Amino acid sequence: MSFYDSAVPAYLQMLASLSAILDKAEAHVTAKKIEPEALLGSRLYPDMLPLSRQVQVACDQAMRGCARLTQNEPQSVPDTEKTFGELKQRLAKAMDYVKGFTPAQFEGADSREVTFPIGGGKTTTMTGQQYLSSFSLPNFYFHVAIAHGILRHSGIEIGKRDFLGAS
Amino acid sequence: MSFYDSAVPAYLQMLASLSAILDKAEAHVTAKKIEPEALLGSRLYPDMLPLSRQVQVACDQAMRGCARLTQNEPQSVPDTEKTFGELKQRLAKAMDYVKGFTPAQFEGADSREVTFPIGGGKTTTMTGQQYLSSFSLPNFYFHVAIAHGILRHSGIEIGKRDFLGAS
Repeated sequence: MSFYDSAVPAYLQMLASLSAILDKAEAHVTAKKIEPEALLGSRLYPDMLPLSRQVQVACDQAMRGCARLTQNEPQSVPDTEKTFGELKQRLAKAMDYVKGFTPAQFEGADSREVTFPIGGGKTTTMTGQQYLSSFSLPNFYFHVAIAHGILRHSGIEIGKRDFLGAS
Repeated sequence: MSFYDSAVPAYLQMLASLSAILDKAEAHVTAKKIEPEALLGSRLYPDMLPLSRQVQVACDQAMRGCARLTQNEPQSVPDTEKTFGELKQRLAKAMDYVKGFTPAQFEGADSREVTFPIGGGKTTTMTGQQYLSSFSLPNFYFHVAIAHGILRHSGIEIGKRDFLGAS
């Protein structure tokens, strides 16, 4: 197996499941005549990010993970999405971007050093394997799971099978 | 790098961060004279698992992941914990169990087949890499992130750095 298999399929699985979950959320607000913005702006706590930002950050984490592991410059995507449709478009674009990487680009990336910003103007350096396992994937799963949590807390009828993309 | 590095450090990082988060939660309920059971029984939605079960399942996922990838029988641990102290003991035991595995045991595990139950009396079979990336890690991170979400929603002052174990 290649290091590619530790990264790309995981990002794609969860971006696709997040898109399918947004479909269910959109169907729910339509059926219940809820303003979409009310759900897209929902948070688990006032100082946490709302649903729309959780989706945007999940896309960023997947794209940045692939870019940094393959010595590409991470793309900066403006956070302009205001509707379910726009968020699903962003997810689709992130999936297309992630699908564009090849196993060959990931060769040797597990032991190659990655330097990335950690906030406060600081950077840190670790191997690609450490970057993927200790930073990129946990961050990525965090935002996908919190998006799921916001939707569950708002009464959307989804479950862990939706999170995993199994249903 | 070894396949061990894709699994064991990730489980250990999050089990340790979850234990540290429970310390902060316990300090919070003590300071605010909140009954610990009120927080341990908190859920994001009535049909979701409460905090205590999220912690138990996270432990199970890490232990099962290591066991299945190394052709060991997963241990069954009874879900008896009722206090923060007991949950932290369970996390400590799970960490000890995970630390007991060696890189040699994971050799070839990425391409070796894993068969595991998926509910409803059914099993499924996939390679170790697929099992880790598409099932074990997403399930594991889900429960750690939802535990975090329950605590944030309950007003515990933690952030993503705590989730990552960086603070």
